[in-house]
Amino acid sequence: MKIAVVAPSCTLHPEAAAAVEAIAARRGGVELAIHPQCFASDGHFAGPDIQRLAALREMMADQSVDAVWFARGGYGSNRIAEAAARDLPEAARSKRYLGYSDAGFLLAAFDRAGLGVAHGPMAQDVLRNGGEAAITRALDWLVDSAQAALEPGLKPGARAMAFNLTVLSSLVGTAIEPDLTGAELIIEDIAEHEYRIDRAMFHVTGSAAVRRCASIRMGRMSEIPANDPVFGSDAEAIVRDWCARSNIAFGGLADVGHDAANKVVPFDLAQD
Amino acid sequence: MKIAVVAPSCTLHPEAAAAVEAIAARRGGVELAIHPQCFASDGHFAGPDIQRLAALREMMADQSVDAVWFARGGYGSNRIAEAAARDLPEAARSKRYLGYSDAGFLLAAFDRAGLGVAHGPMAQDVLRNGGEAAITRALDWLVDSAQAALEPGLKPGARAMAFNLTVLSSLVGTAIEPDLTGAELIIEDIAEHEYRIDRAMFHVTGSAAVRRCASIRMGRMSEIPANDPVFGSDAEAIVRDWCARSNIAFGGLADVGHDAANKVVPFDLAQD
Repeated sequence: MKIAVVAPSCTLHPEAAAAVEAIAARRGGVELAIHPQCFASDGHFAGPDIQRLAALREMMADQSVDAVWFARGGYGSNRIAEAAARDLPEAARSKRYLGYSDAGFLLAAFDRAGLGVAHGPMAQDVLRNGGEAAITRALDWLVDSAQAALEPGLKPGARAMAFNLTVLSSLVGTAIEPDLTGAELIIEDIAEHEYRIDRAMFHVTGSAAVRRCASIRMGRMSEIPANDPVFGSDAEAIVRDWCARSNIAFGGLADVGHDAANKVVPFDLAQD
Repeated sequence: MKIAVVAPSCTLHPEAAAAVEAIAARRGGVELAIHPQCFASDGHFAGPDIQRLAALREMMADQSVDAVWFARGGYGSNRIAEAAARDLPEAARSKRYLGYSDAGFLLAAFDRAGLGVAHGPMAQDVLRNGGEAAITRALDWLVDSAQAALEPGLKPGARAMAFNLTVLSSLVGTAIEPDLTGAELIIEDIAEHEYRIDRAMFHVTGSAAVRRCASIRMGRMSEIPANDPVFGSDAEAIVRDWCARSNIAFGGLADVGHDAANKVVPFDLAQD
């Protein structure tokens, strides 16, 4: 089992790479190939677009690679997502792809292209409090398809999709907008003010494409900055309100978020 | 000439109201009717949705009112914009509507409904450094259709539309998405990181609806917070880059922004 790690947005911290390699070595039965591009740096990004795209495409086309694991979030995968999903080599179709947060741009583009994507922990999550559990969960899913790694509310055979709310908002109306028809949509976010959560919920639930989803469940909305004045509502009430306004069923809470407890959401559980 | 001021998002500061009333009184020939709703407060907003909507609709339906001037931005007009533009009373059609920033949600919805909207200074701008000039410019436009108030690059007879970039991003794909076909699109923003400007530009230029515009001009992108690491590009380079990627003509800079110099952009100059 060979897992390639690439960084389509920001640079992977070397100590995170070392820690994840140590966990994989202790586990055994898995070869972790951390692409040198993960440590490249060009302003905000882990190398220029062309370098990030080339590393990703190289691993997608490599027949010896069983899974492509996104190193971390940040910002930037949207800049290469459409190109990464174009003219796919056959070898790209037999792999799993795992990530979340900014990597949601790639999840959306790759899911549209028929690839097997999942929303879940990334390599740099090892640096979080309790991060080893997140890495173990990711490997359990990638290597063993462990059911215990899955978000517990997923329904076998039903389509589910999970996104960072702000990333989903940035996908609405683009060429890589996800096809949410009939899917359970799970959203999460981090470090966004309540007024921004409210605005993003206005936006995504106002989209005809999003309204085709079966329901919305809310993952964790963490590290919400203070609102001045006090907003007058909290994240769950905001999500419930916009679901009600747009006639989308609210399905309750989901066990995903920017933390070590973040569970795995394969976009098409029936195919796994 | 009677101008009604309503606050569809956040509460108007009383000192701003007094200062604007003083400017209007010195000017003469204009009656400023600051609706009491401007001073209401409900968490983040100038009163609950129903109160803000009622005040706006009341002024839209009032035959004695010649113009509706939005008190300020902040956040919240999106929550009432679609309802405000529905089943319009005839009196709403003979008025001008002026505002920007968060009020862009109303500009979009009202323009779609055939009302005469313009992007330009709001009452609370009086509190800015040099703010009296902004108020004078707004009144010059509303009362006298003064050409000197207009953004100097506008082409008579050509359609132009101006939006806060983040607001436009939140409009893409919704029922009140602006019809940009053939229009010159002017964008501005405030207090957004470069990575957020980049992400918003990815989003709006990735929209088929936005790609129908004739060109994009960039107003001021002000108070950009520091990026860590240094982003590697500046706002103008970001806007130019996404215009090039999406085959939208970049038309240069525009004299609009979150400041006292903010010029007026009527969405349909030919009709004025």
